[in-house]
Amino acid sequence: MPEIHAARRNALRALLDQDGLDALLVTDLVNIRYLTGFTGSNAALLVRTAGEDGTVFCTDGRYTTQSSVEVPDLERVLDRASANALVAKSNEHADRYRRTGFESQHVSVEQYETLKDLAEGVTFDRAPGLVERLRLVKDEAEVAALREACAVADRALADLIAHGGLRAGRTEREVARDLENRMLDHGSSGPSFESIVAAGANSAIPHHRPTDAVLAAGDFVKLDFGAVVDGYHSDMTRTLVLGEPAGWQRELYDLVRRSQAAGRAALAPGADVTAVDAAARTVIEEAGHGSEFSHGLGHGVGLDVHEAPSLSTTGVGTLSAGMAVTVEPGVYLAGRGGVRIEDTLVVRDGDPELLTLSSKELVVV
Amino acid sequence: MPEIHAARRNALRALLDQDGLDALLVTDLVNIRYLTGFTGSNAALLVRTAGEDGTVFCTDGRYTTQSSVEVPDLERVLDRASANALVAKSNEHADRYRRTGFESQHVSVEQYETLKDLAEGVTFDRAPGLVERLRLVKDEAEVAALREACAVADRALADLIAHGGLRAGRTEREVARDLENRMLDHGSSGPSFESIVAAGANSAIPHHRPTDAVLAAGDFVKLDFGAVVDGYHSDMTRTLVLGEPAGWQRELYDLVRRSQAAGRAALAPGADVTAVDAAARTVIEEAGHGSEFSHGLGHGVGLDVHEAPSLSTTGVGTLSAGMAVTVEPGVYLAGRGGVRIEDTLVVRDGDPELLTLSSKELVVV
Repeated sequence: MPEIHAARRNALRALLDQDGLDALLVTDLVNIRYLTGFTGSNAALLVRTAGEDGTVFCTDGRYTTQSSVEVPDLERVLDRASANALVAKSNEHADRYRRTGFESQHVSVEQYETLKDLAEGVTFDRAPGLVERLRLVKDEAEVAALREACAVADRALADLIAHGGLRAGRTEREVARDLENRMLDHGSSGPSFESIVAAGANSAIPHHRPTDAVLAAGDFVKLDFGAVVDGYHSDMTRTLVLGEPAGWQRELYDLVRRSQAAGRAALAPGADVTAVDAAARTVIEEAGHGSEFSHGLGHGVGLDVHEAPSLSTTGVGTLSAGMAVTVEPGVYLAGRGGVRIEDTLVVRDGDPELLTLSSKELVVV
Repeated sequence: MPEIHAARRNALRALLDQDGLDALLVTDLVNIRYLTGFTGSNAALLVRTAGEDGTVFCTDGRYTTQSSVEVPDLERVLDRASANALVAKSNEHADRYRRTGFESQHVSVEQYETLKDLAEGVTFDRAPGLVERLRLVKDEAEVAALREACAVADRALADLIAHGGLRAGRTEREVARDLENRMLDHGSSGPSFESIVAAGANSAIPHHRPTDAVLAAGDFVKLDFGAVVDGYHSDMTRTLVLGEPAGWQRELYDLVRRSQAAGRAALAPGADVTAVDAAARTVIEEAGHGSEFSHGLGHGVGLDVHEAPSLSTTGVGTLSAGMAVTVEPGVYLAGRGGVRIEDTLVVRDGDPELLTLSSKELVVV
């Protein structure tokens, strides 16, 4: 899709132009993938504001073939020290790159010192978050990848349940591995993040790592996991009960489910991210469990599993159509158990598009 | 093992003292794990040169319980903005932290600006690589973890072969997954890095990602993989032939094997890292394949899968007893196939200790 990447570079140029920059040195690999399609582990990209002439991509010799396929449309340099090589290149035409921005939230202080030392006639300006700003709103190709990543996770969970993979006697670790293998079967390139499988009292730990703890009848089992398709990450949580739920479990589940529905309903273009958080949080606070919902409501997802915007009490900004976010309230009763329900959605004009399609009934396995 | 971590912090203090620093703000999570034992995903550590009084650890509320178990011996602050919280803390006793070093090879330019803005009466000095310098030489507890990580990878490969997992008709991806699952069975907490399984002509690509390419009779199959035990990474490569090897395959294999043996034999305290690389490289160059050995000979392994020292033509420094390194020459004949053989070893007084024990015969599967 070279035309998509060219369009993204043009959108970036508009931002550079606004900031009075002649170029941007892009060193974050995820941002480089977004702007070029390159998926290797070493690269740098110099985007010239004036256009593709003078926009240069660099990777090393390991990726000669791969980069010629993935990045057929840009001038290319092969050098292991990719960012430094592009600075050397820009020195040859310093008039084109006089004021070059750099990704100051990714570049270390040492790297920056090196860049400054190498530059001749070019100054480097802090320019954090420009590509990230573009990545906030997904195009339809990105949404398609996210939709598929969510579907893969949905299918894996359905398989796990259908094949009796969630049963008393198995360890959290076994369940996590089973689920991850099923995602691979359905086309995930790897887990979106370290899967969480938390049984019984462990379900009250928001970010629990799977252990050798054994699932038992009557347990809440919280599963937080995701798949990766074409570099795009899904993120979902379901909480289930092994056997017949107790009254307190039904109550807790129903509360979180209502909160989650309220959060989803608040997703609309123009909504302030703190207002979306509040819509879900209020439901839990009114039930007297506010202090047991100890994290934000959600976050953006895309080429990174956690990206902007942050739907939380301290988040900043408003939603736009095309943003992909999670909605994941939870209530955690220490020593007893917890419930979290999480979907990935896309903000749309009108109702948001739900990408996570697994049932949100309190599935009794 | 709180006493091990306390001893490491004392060793760090000796380096801080040499540099005239009153403290070091440690923000790299791997370095924090090395100095404290903490394994969570958010932390910062302020090590005061004068001693444990005034040495403060910070993580967030998700890790309240975990950090009290893993880091029982340090003053603790709970705050999501961990580094910033420690700067605020140091402001309360600026006289103790007057000149504080920071990990300038890890801290971004934006983070550094924030730290400077928050500091009152404390200056931040660039202090790259101090903890990494300590991590170069492994203690016996670290070697034990590396030994086990290497053994897990050895066992997984033996299982894979014994169960017919390497056979014509399987895809590279299937083999990689099988191997990774067997490492998990033997106690790995996850793959040490993205496993390489490269069949036939793909074996000539040094860093090939497993694809749906199918293994065929007569193929070289190159497997580069590792396990993680207690945070320590192993790294090994074996190249095998499916069926009877052709003459050129035997020749190529024998060449790489002799090169690898020469590299291992050169591992000794005091050896220059470029000399170790040269010992192995000369063997390949003399056979006329120098240009087809397109990477360095090896690298340090430990809490990171790639760490110092670099055994390469551009590496700097000499070896010491207790360093753990890989030795991994390769020759890659584009379009035909390639061979790499890699072990992990520990430099010792006298002969190095070989941690990777799998056979280096040209195993014919």
